[in-house]
Amino acid sequence: MYRPQKKKIVVIGGNDSGLSAAGRAKRMNPELDVLVLEKSNHVSYASCSLPYLVWGKIPARDLSGYSPESIKEHRDFQVKTKTLVTAIDTFKKSLITKNIDTEITNEIKYDKLIISTGAKPIIPDELNVKAQNIFSLRAFTDAEKIEKFILENNPQKAVIIGSGYLGIEMAEAFFYRGLKVTLIEKSPRLFQDFIPEISNQIIDNIKSKGIDLILNDTVKQLMIKNGNAYKVILNNTNVELDTDIILISAGITPDVELAKNAGIPAGQSGAICVNNHQQTRRLDVFAAGDCAETKHLVTNKSTWLPLAGIASKQGRIAGTNCAGSREIFPGALGTVMIKAFDYEWGKTGLSFFEAQQAGFSPVTTVITHNNKPDYISGSCPITVGLNVDSRTGRLLGAQIAGSHDAGLRLNVVATAISARFTVNDLAFLDLGYTPMITNLWDPISVAGNVAIKNIKDNK
Amino acid sequence: MYRPQKKKIVVIGGNDSGLSAAGRAKRMNPELDVLVLEKSNHVSYASCSLPYLVWGKIPARDLSGYSPESIKEHRDFQVKTKTLVTAIDTFKKSLITKNIDTEITNEIKYDKLIISTGAKPIIPDELNVKAQNIFSLRAFTDAEKIEKFILENNPQKAVIIGSGYLGIEMAEAFFYRGLKVTLIEKSPRLFQDFIPEISNQIIDNIKSKGIDLILNDTVKQLMIKNGNAYKVILNNTNVELDTDIILISAGITPDVELAKNAGIPAGQSGAICVNNHQQTRRLDVFAAGDCAETKHLVTNKSTWLPLAGIASKQGRIAGTNCAGSREIFPGALGTVMIKAFDYEWGKTGLSFFEAQQAGFSPVTTVITHNNKPDYISGSCPITVGLNVDSRTGRLLGAQIAGSHDAGLRLNVVATAISARFTVNDLAFLDLGYTPMITNLWDPISVAGNVAIKNIKDNK
Repeated sequence: MYRPQKKKIVVIGGNDSGLSAAGRAKRMNPELDVLVLEKSNHVSYASCSLPYLVWGKIPARDLSGYSPESIKEHRDFQVKTKTLVTAIDTFKKSLITKNIDTEITNEIKYDKLIISTGAKPIIPDELNVKAQNIFSLRAFTDAEKIEKFILENNPQKAVIIGSGYLGIEMAEAFFYRGLKVTLIEKSPRLFQDFIPEISNQIIDNIKSKGIDLILNDTVKQLMIKNGNAYKVILNNTNVELDTDIILISAGITPDVELAKNAGIPAGQSGAICVNNHQQTRRLDVFAAGDCAETKHLVTNKSTWLPLAGIASKQGRIAGTNCAGSREIFPGALGTVMIKAFDYEWGKTGLSFFEAQQAGFSPVTTVITHNNKPDYISGSCPITVGLNVDSRTGRLLGAQIAGSHDAGLRLNVVATAISARFTVNDLAFLDLGYTPMITNLWDPISVAGNVAIKNIKDNK
Repeated sequence: MYRPQKKKIVVIGGNDSGLSAAGRAKRMNPELDVLVLEKSNHVSYASCSLPYLVWGKIPARDLSGYSPESIKEHRDFQVKTKTLVTAIDTFKKSLITKNIDTEITNEIKYDKLIISTGAKPIIPDELNVKAQNIFSLRAFTDAEKIEKFILENNPQKAVIIGSGYLGIEMAEAFFYRGLKVTLIEKSPRLFQDFIPEISNQIIDNIKSKGIDLILNDTVKQLMIKNGNAYKVILNNTNVELDTDIILISAGITPDVELAKNAGIPAGQSGAICVNNHQQTRRLDVFAAGDCAETKHLVTNKSTWLPLAGIASKQGRIAGTNCAGSREIFPGALGTVMIKAFDYEWGKTGLSFFEAQQAGFSPVTTVITHNNKPDYISGSCPITVGLNVDSRTGRLLGAQIAGSHDAGLRLNVVATAISARFTVNDLAFLDLGYTPMITNLWDPISVAGNVAIKNIKDNK
């Protein structure tokens, strides 16, 4: 019997989007030969949970996900770990791989390629120093190394450079490990794209735990002795901080070198250009996740939104389309949420500044209203910031924070923004009410109503 | 100086919608003379919290809200309690009132009238018996009477007739008061308009507390001795239940007698017909809240949705329009949620049956997926049921349940239904992800994806 050769789909990167793509392609068409190439020795780790591994809250075995063997058994595709892709030839439709241990190289042919190389930490020049106690955190092995260092060396003082989402989560992890933590932030305030009401609450919460926060400063120099950084010297304040461990969380950048070298175009954001099928501008090459651009649903422009939820969905879309079916990624809003130091906060859509840049006439409304009636246990204030276009009343972006019940409310507003709702639509949404869960007028409805008034007053 | 007489707005009913209307009218136009007439001696009670007053969880003073004096002082409109309206003359634009204590009657003229008479409990004939230990719960005084009876008589056994939202909440209140509770439900299962997965979980939770549930049965007779009901005899099972206190929670009906007698038309649902300004079909007469109809956002038809959130919003709209400005109530979905016996559940939009009745071709999708990764504390299964039109993919209704984080998720789907989203739109919503709050694929997104598949399979 004649059997045509199976079509081969190769995925570069065994992370959220890569595994989502591979699994989806195989489910859509079980006849496909699907192969995932992963440079590290781990696949399917829950990268957003890595700070909790350092914290010691979650054991490593809970995060390591599936092994290549179990993926082969349960999902019927192959994963090769410790396999670095060194080159892509989009004309020959082949890759060159190198085994990390043996350094043996190999050529692999593909019918369809999915690039899911993710993002990598930015290490500023002055921090690009070899030392055993300087870390960044992106991959599973990074978290393992940090945990190992803590257990073996019992550090007392930590300095975290960069206080974005990861910086704050790692401050919490170090704090609960018993370390004295100093956070260094180059901006004049924390989470600059948030309204001051939320930024200030975060600062209060952090400081109440005894964490030191130095704003508006950067590192001039790291002092090294015996292979360890022992002092951090700052630029503006000239403060010198003693330290036993340093985490660099100064942002990430899309990991697109491989794609660039293969002539696969990147957009203005630096990430790989894709259409709504996750196709790049090269035939039979797809990209998904933190290495790829995303269409922003408010501006309709391509932008870079490196977030796990978007990565996983884009992976699914790439998988569907590689497998010969058709599915569209509609775009995203950059909805991001975090819970740290007993506080939840998050944002979706455009900030005031982004809205201005995009040509809107934003007006910001800020309200604080309790999640439930104040006589019900668990009642707490929820702060809502809405950015609304004053010309049309269209909802452009939102920020929500509170000690609990903030994140899930953010998803309501994200849905409203996706629907291109005006503040009027938002204010009169039929949200459920029961005193044990919500308030008669939800903070979101209150914010909508105040925003209606603010827009009128603005005219 | 000539001062024209102030325009007079009279509101019948000092409840959620009535006070919302009065307050809004006064804010919109401080020149108005606004008067609220309330038959009981309480205004502004949080009626949905009354079971917690019986429970003893919340003291009465927390629920009694504002006094007429404080309303006069802070919101500058007048409230007359113990004032029953006995007739409306829409031609003369006047009302007849009767003071409950003195029985003195009075005629009051209005320029605009807002009817906010709410709803009243249904008492089936066989239960319409005078006894000191038979109660229903609608008004603040009902809750006070029940609490007083419990404290003075120390009842041991309670029978609750009707196991809807109020019946379940009161079962919880009696249970935590230490009573042995039996719930009687005429339907063959609890919460018939919910998917069996949710109904069964509610039953399991109730039974695990030792509460007896008798389904598919009704009361044949109540046995009375010395002015107290001491036995409940059922129809189908012939069971005889000893009891010390009875709560009748067999549903409610719009309180429209006054409106009917004044010739103000009611719709098919039995509630007062209103347009999207909350105007009735009589000049200068508005209606809002549980006595009025609501446009359903999925069917576009008038229906009766007696819920506090809708009542409060309708009151606001009536107030705005009475005050001479223009605001529209867009309609509602009947979003309802409840938390009882450590379980949250709720629904929004159409049930399968309602969707069929409305001419859709519904397909129901049921999934269970955790709220957060299972290695995070507080992780629990969330059950989602989606009713989707198989012809268009349009989302028609949803039900969500779980031990927590279910209610706020329901609001996301309510927003999606308001936006006339398809399951595809739902599945790819950019919902936020952080392990401490949510899962990488939220239960809502999972439900959306499974529903996409179910619709395809159905074709």
